[in-house]
Amino acid sequence: MIPRHLLDEVVRRALDEDLAGGDVTTDSVVPPDAAAVGRAIAKSPLVACGGDVFARAFYAIDPGVRVERLVDEGTRVDAGTELWRVEGSARSLLLAERTALNFAQRLSGIASLTRRFVDALPPGARTRVADTRKTTPGLRAFERYAVRMGGGHNHRDSLGSAVMIKDNHIAAAGGIEPAVERARSRAPHTSRIEVEVTDLEQLDEALRLGVEIIMLDNFDDARTAEAVQRTAGRALLEVSGNVGLDRVTRLAQLGVDVISVGALTHSAPAADISLALELIGVAG
Amino acid sequence: MIPRHLLDEVVRRALDEDLAGGDVTTDSVVPPDAAAVGRAIAKSPLVACGGDVFARAFYAIDPGVRVERLVDEGTRVDAGTELWRVEGSARSLLLAERTALNFAQRLSGIASLTRRFVDALPPGARTRVADTRKTTPGLRAFERYAVRMGGGHNHRDSLGSAVMIKDNHIAAAGGIEPAVERARSRAPHTSRIEVEVTDLEQLDEALRLGVEIIMLDNFDDARTAEAVQRTAGRALLEVSGNVGLDRVTRLAQLGVDVISVGALTHSAPAADISLALELIGVAG
Amino acid sequence: MIPRHLLDEVVRRALDEDLAGGDVTTDSVVPPDAAAVGRAIAKSPLVACGGDVFARAFYAIDPGVRVERLVDEGTRVDAGTELWRVEGSARSLLLAERTALNFAQRLSGIASLTRRFVDALPPGARTRVADTRKTTPGLRAFERYAVRMGGGHNHRDSLGSAVMIKDNHIAAAGGIEPAVERARSRAPHTSRIEVEVTDLEQLDEALRLGVEIIMLDNFDDARTAEAVQRTAGRALLEVSGNVGLDRVTRLAQLGVDVISVGALTHSAPAADISLALELIGVAG
Amino acid sequence: MIPRHLLDEVVRRALDEDLAGGDVTTDSVVPPDAAAVGRAIAKSPLVACGGDVFARAFYAIDPGVRVERLVDEGTRVDAGTELWRVEGSARSLLLAERTALNFAQRLSGIASLTRRFVDALPPGARTRVADTRKTTPGLRAFERYAVRMGGGHNHRDSLGSAVMIKDNHIAAAGGIEPAVERARSRAPHTSRIEVEVTDLEQLDEALRLGVEIIMLDNFDDARTAEAVQRTAGRALLEVSGNVGLDRVTRLAQLGVDVISVGALTHSAPAADISLALELIGVAG
Amino acid sequence: MIPRHLLDEVVRRALDEDLAGGDVTTDSVVPPDAAAVGRAIAKSPLVACGGDVFARAFYAIDPGVRVERLVDEGTRVDAGTELWRVEGSARSLLLAERTALNFAQRLSGIASLTRRFVDALPPGARTRVADTRKTTPGLRAFERYAVRMGGGHNHRDSLGSAVMIKDNHIAAAGGIEPAVERARSRAPHTSRIEVEVTDLEQLDEALRLGVEIIMLDNFDDARTAEAVQRTAGRALLEVSGNVGLDRVTRLAQLGVDVISVGALTHSAPAADISLALELIGVAG
Amino acid sequence: MIPRHLLDEVVRRALDEDLAGGDVTTDSVVPPDAAAVGRAIAKSPLVACGGDVFARAFYAIDPGVRVERLVDEGTRVDAGTELWRVEGSARSLLLAERTALNFAQRLSGIASLTRRFVDALPPGARTRVADTRKTTPGLRAFERYAVRMGGGHNHRDSLGSAVMIKDNHIAAAGGIEPAVERARSRAPHTSRIEVEVTDLEQLDEALRLGVEIIMLDNFDDARTAEAVQRTAGRALLEVSGNVGLDRVTRLAQLGVDVISVGALTHSAPAADISLALELIGVAG
Repeated sequence: MIPRHLLDEVVRRALDEDLAGGDVTTDSVVPPDAAAVGRAIAKSPLVACGGDVFARAFYAIDPGVRVERLVDEGTRVDAGTELWRVEGSARSLLLAERTALNFAQRLSGIASLTRRFVDALPPGARTRVADTRKTTPGLRAFERYAVRMGGGHNHRDSLGSAVMIKDNHIAAAGGIEPAVERARSRAPHTSRIEVEVTDLEQLDEALRLGVEIIMLDNFDDARTAEAVQRTAGRALLEVSGNVGLDRVTRLAQLGVDVISVGALTHSAPAADISLALELIGVAG
Repeated sequence: MIPRHLLDEVVRRALDEDLAGGDVTTDSVVPPDAAAVGRAIAKSPLVACGGDVFARAFYAIDPGVRVERLVDEGTRVDAGTELWRVEGSARSLLLAERTALNFAQRLSGIASLTRRFVDALPPGARTRVADTRKTTPGLRAFERYAVRMGGGHNHRDSLGSAVMIKDNHIAAAGGIEPAVERARSRAPHTSRIEVEVTDLEQLDEALRLGVEIIMLDNFDDARTAEAVQRTAGRALLEVSGNVGLDRVTRLAQLGVDVISVGALTHSAPAADISLALELIGVAG
Repeated sequence: MIPRHLLDEVVRRALDEDLAGGDVTTDSVVPPDAAAVGRAIAKSPLVACGGDVFARAFYAIDPGVRVERLVDEGTRVDAGTELWRVEGSARSLLLAERTALNFAQRLSGIASLTRRFVDALPPGARTRVADTRKTTPGLRAFERYAVRMGGGHNHRDSLGSAVMIKDNHIAAAGGIEPAVERARSRAPHTSRIEVEVTDLEQLDEALRLGVEIIMLDNFDDARTAEAVQRTAGRALLEVSGNVGLDRVTRLAQLGVDVISVGALTHSAPAADISLALELIGVAG
Repeated sequence: MIPRHLLDEVVRRALDEDLAGGDVTTDSVVPPDAAAVGRAIAKSPLVACGGDVFARAFYAIDPGVRVERLVDEGTRVDAGTELWRVEGSARSLLLAERTALNFAQRLSGIASLTRRFVDALPPGARTRVADTRKTTPGLRAFERYAVRMGGGHNHRDSLGSAVMIKDNHIAAAGGIEPAVERARSRAPHTSRIEVEVTDLEQLDEALRLGVEIIMLDNFDDARTAEAVQRTAGRALLEVSGNVGLDRVTRLAQLGVDVISVGALTHSAPAADISLALELIGVAG
Repeated sequence: MIPRHLLDEVVRRALDEDLAGGDVTTDSVVPPDAAAVGRAIAKSPLVACGGDVFARAFYAIDPGVRVERLVDEGTRVDAGTELWRVEGSARSLLLAERTALNFAQRLSGIASLTRRFVDALPPGARTRVADTRKTTPGLRAFERYAVRMGGGHNHRDSLGSAVMIKDNHIAAAGGIEPAVERARSRAPHTSRIEVEVTDLEQLDEALRLGVEIIMLDNFDDARTAEAVQRTAGRALLEVSGNVGLDRVTRLAQLGVDVISVGALTHSAPAADISLALELIGVAG
Repeated sequence: MIPRHLLDEVVRRALDEDLAGGDVTTDSVVPPDAAAVGRAIAKSPLVACGGDVFARAFYAIDPGVRVERLVDEGTRVDAGTELWRVEGSARSLLLAERTALNFAQRLSGIASLTRRFVDALPPGARTRVADTRKTTPGLRAFERYAVRMGGGHNHRDSLGSAVMIKDNHIAAAGGIEPAVERARSRAPHTSRIEVEVTDLEQLDEALRLGVEIIMLDNFDDARTAEAVQRTAGRALLEVSGNVGLDRVTRLAQLGVDVISVGALTHSAPAADISLALELIGVAG
């Protein structure tokens, strides 16, 4: 659930891009009293996501538009499924149409790609597919929501909410141990400590220091298996980097806890959704 | 060129998402006087784009960071090429890194995909590959810029800057002729009139009315060829919809003037760019 | 029609100027439950414009205020005509009154001045009276709307939506021809190309290059007539600069297509509208 | 002096209107390394005003632009006078030109009109010409500054900073006395109390209550003279309403203290200022 | 009364701090259809203040939440008193709870502290207890409102609304007289002139110049008494600085007109208010 | 370290409150070329905090002001200590003075109060004193920073960054176990799970479920001791609520890990800092 005040703020900015100069075509061609119904249709199989923001885009233009949701968020649907229906002034529907769809296509695209990764996990696996901070500037909360609707999990939402110690932090601190100690003494007690390691020696040191999450940087399958064995549940193991669909299955079988995938948000193709508009007469 | 006041506004919002709560890790682990140099490296072949916004992200955090551009915008580079270099406070580089890369990866991704479409045009073709209004909410100006850097062209930038009469407008107006007349009498004289047609009869009517651009909706190759012949240069012909790389070549050979491709902006995978940070000692 | 999200944003800023510190007088003097009706009256003949923003100013303070519109936008009315009526909490009416009127007086002023220019066109003339980019900072969309309500037309809405090549562009490009070629290869295909010319030789060159709009810079009547004759409908001819009411008639008779008048927006005197408030008892 | 953070905020919004989509013409036609100098010239006699905001508009686009002020704010200049000079990248000058001029023309227009009213005061008169809250939405601080530069004075800046009791307040309170008492007990002690009166009886009552400013509503010259006599310096007398240049002289001679003129800000024609740009070679 | 557009803007920013990343706990744990009622209870005696902003915080998240006010603003209540009641979706109540309380606790804290100062005035005293510009950045209008609800008065709301000449102004002008003259000739006629004096000679000079308010800087009781006597009602006398509750009584007895107390806004402890939430079943 | 873009945004809003209408006094009384130096002096012992935002307030008005920091952030200083020095245009210093001090007094006040709590911990205690989400609306990042500078720790920064299960969540979920399970399956893996318990039975259940942090709600000393014993290091124990300075010592001796204190941010009195301005001649 994205809080409403945030939905509306981002919607307002998006409408501004498209409508700061009005809509010359609709303004001149469509009578003010024409009414219409629009059906948002999935043109190919997808995971539906973005009903809230789709609705808010129309409301922002015209609170008189009625929006009906026909499928739950996160539902897998076939091509041809009607997802949402809008009804009201034809002018209002035409003004908000593109903005509403731009949001819905992106969010459904992310949910759909996430779902494919989650479905690649072996049955019964407790491995998570998680997003990263590689989100579209301005849309982080939206895209994290879409990942959840696709069955994925969220990583930390910002640099301020949890600790992740990477190679440069280790170098700057002069080693894993001082880095972990400094971070622990400063981080909110609600945050776990995560450390990125590049070899098994670093893994051992991180385990010795009791860090709660260890990210394996560029480990092949053999070393990953070794890491799982050495860790023995004492820490969560996370794998990141360019993990494709095929490797997801294998990594889950090896027993890693989290696979974080930047592509979920930075490279998901838009879902194919169109709005079929039909004039229904004069608006009330 | 994206105007600077716009760059900075969007950068500020993006930093806000990642840094509203500060950076717990860097703040605790990295000494305030540590300095570093960062090299932005293409990890696979791509068209470089986004140097401006990449630089502004670092400047927004710390005007003392120095940014050097090593390739021109729109340049095709091989994997391993260094694109941009930043130097300054290690803390500042770590704070802005992810935001700067999120922009650069998206823009270079769009430029790279656009370049592939443009390269699919037959030699000597005067056909344009153009973007659409299917851009990421909040980033329209940025994405249109990236399309240009990839060799593509921009369509109208918003509903207020040019006229495009679609099926629903025609239905609401009661025909192509009244729609065109109303739009012509209202549109700025700097705007051409574009009409979307669904068959050859509508094409003929649009030509008779002297509209300057005609969009062929769902025309197969044969009908497209017929449309080109009937039009005989009296109007620009645009093809939109789900046009893939293969069809681009064929459509250009048939002689259409503009191929607009929503995927350029809504489905371009991020370009793979990473920032290799190296500590270089104490900042001045 | 100005999109609602834009109306409300600009209204909010305007209210902020007047009300960031509250309203000391009303807060202390007017009982919270006093109700009132307010009648917006034209104090002299004018073209009514701004009913939307007038209403939104009251709604922004108090959604319980009822606003009734008694005349259509763009209507010419005599002195004494009641334009809009508001009813609700006396405090709410007093808080929003000045802001609402400031908008309405400006927009009606622009519509009224535009109407005078349009009425100066000879009967049957197809010449347009158009605005320019010389609008009040922050109110461009509002003022362009007012020009339309006065019977005028809009020029391009921003530097990004259409091409206008002026003397400095020509100088920088090294001539009209390279300037036109560069602009044509970059501009959206939805934009016409406009070139400003200073003499008949430049006019001939622009015609030869097939530009669609030519602006005549500082042409007297004789040369304007010659320009119309040479152009012979191959391009639209626009005249700009300090064109007064008298010259409008003559220019239209000479056959120019567009007369753009900066004064419509930068020098229109405010229309005289006042709000007659009457207390009607205790609010519900 | 308008505080800088406010200047830049309003400038940013103004640039947004004109440049959200970039500048198609300049971007395609003007080489990135072209340099230019621009001279802002008064095309008719005026009072110069707005040098600060003129400069900030160029700086917002490009901090490398150099701006020189050739006349002091508030100076009366003849046609042909160079007011300000800008030098730098030709692209930057072209992008900011219109926005910078839109501000400067408006502010100089207001300063010039104010100067005419102030000059209409008889020599030695201590009467003030003041503005009102009838300012352009979004530009109040700018326009009040321009009034001062024209030799005028400012009225209260908002509903929150001082008390003005009008007819509706009196009606709602049940009389002048309760209205004044309530306002006095609530208003900041730094604020004087102003009351609008419609006849001499109300004037007497206001004087009896010791209010510090009395506004004479619709008093003819005879009654105004009588009011001045009765008041005998016990309160400041203000005249508002549609006061033209001729009546200003007479009112001052009658001895009123303040003449507030809405037209200063709502109906001042723009001053005629143009920017003469000259290319000077390749930028550094 | 704080204008609604201002309430909502500040509420939106506050929600942003707490909810930009959503509410992980509520989102996962509380069913979407759970309903609840929340009672805002005073945990210790206080002056209730902030009902408006408390309500708007819930509405901003969910316009379906019902808010009931059980006590008037500014009412003194005992521990255990229910102040406001909210009812609606349990999720919505949990999301807005902290933000709503943060506002209400601060405003009630300020109102309560102000009430203690006002109650320290001797019976029948006409001395005012006033706030200062030492308010929390971003909340000035809110805190000034709370001071009024506690029975206090507001000082000028900003540097732009009234004149206050302090020691540095006097030094820069070269004396009290030139400072007062310059300020008088520039200030809005609605503003009184206030001067800060450091000894009785300055007091005499200020009185001679007819300034309307004089602030006594660091006067002990004897000198304050002398100042009251010399002034003899010709000006308002204000005392500022670190005035505690005990000195308030004495100063009022000495006859000063205004005691301004920065602590009202910069050091008021939060009032103790908690929200007792109770689940009441499934929301409609 | 508060990121600079955030500093400047909040500073801009604060200046807006004080300066939207300019500074009437300074504008009229202080010559434009007067220069001054200002010394920020601690008037009583305090922990210095807010140097960054103090400096940015002056820079926002005038980038030419020089700011020097004489003490490190978080330093305990005696009354009379000079903290920061500003030098530049007298007008600029006077405009920004109040805003700069309002920030610095609040942040130093919070740091100072936090230091008192931290100093109340017994020597060698590993107990943390932490803040809460009871921060001033709009200033959360600033106040959390001040808590750290006072030697305290931060709790989670928002509802989105970590899980805290309270009584209402437990009730809505139907028990601690389902609440913990749902939260665990949804929360980012970087977040620990915290549960609030009201008795020892709930404590035992929380321990059995392996939650990482347990908040003891309203436990007296005896029960707290019992909780520490039962927990035996398996979870962090947090105590919140109205914990005063005296109880801090006792709770730390009992062995709780975290004491969170809302008063650090909601009830810290402002530190007493003043700016001693001295005119030094004509600015350069």
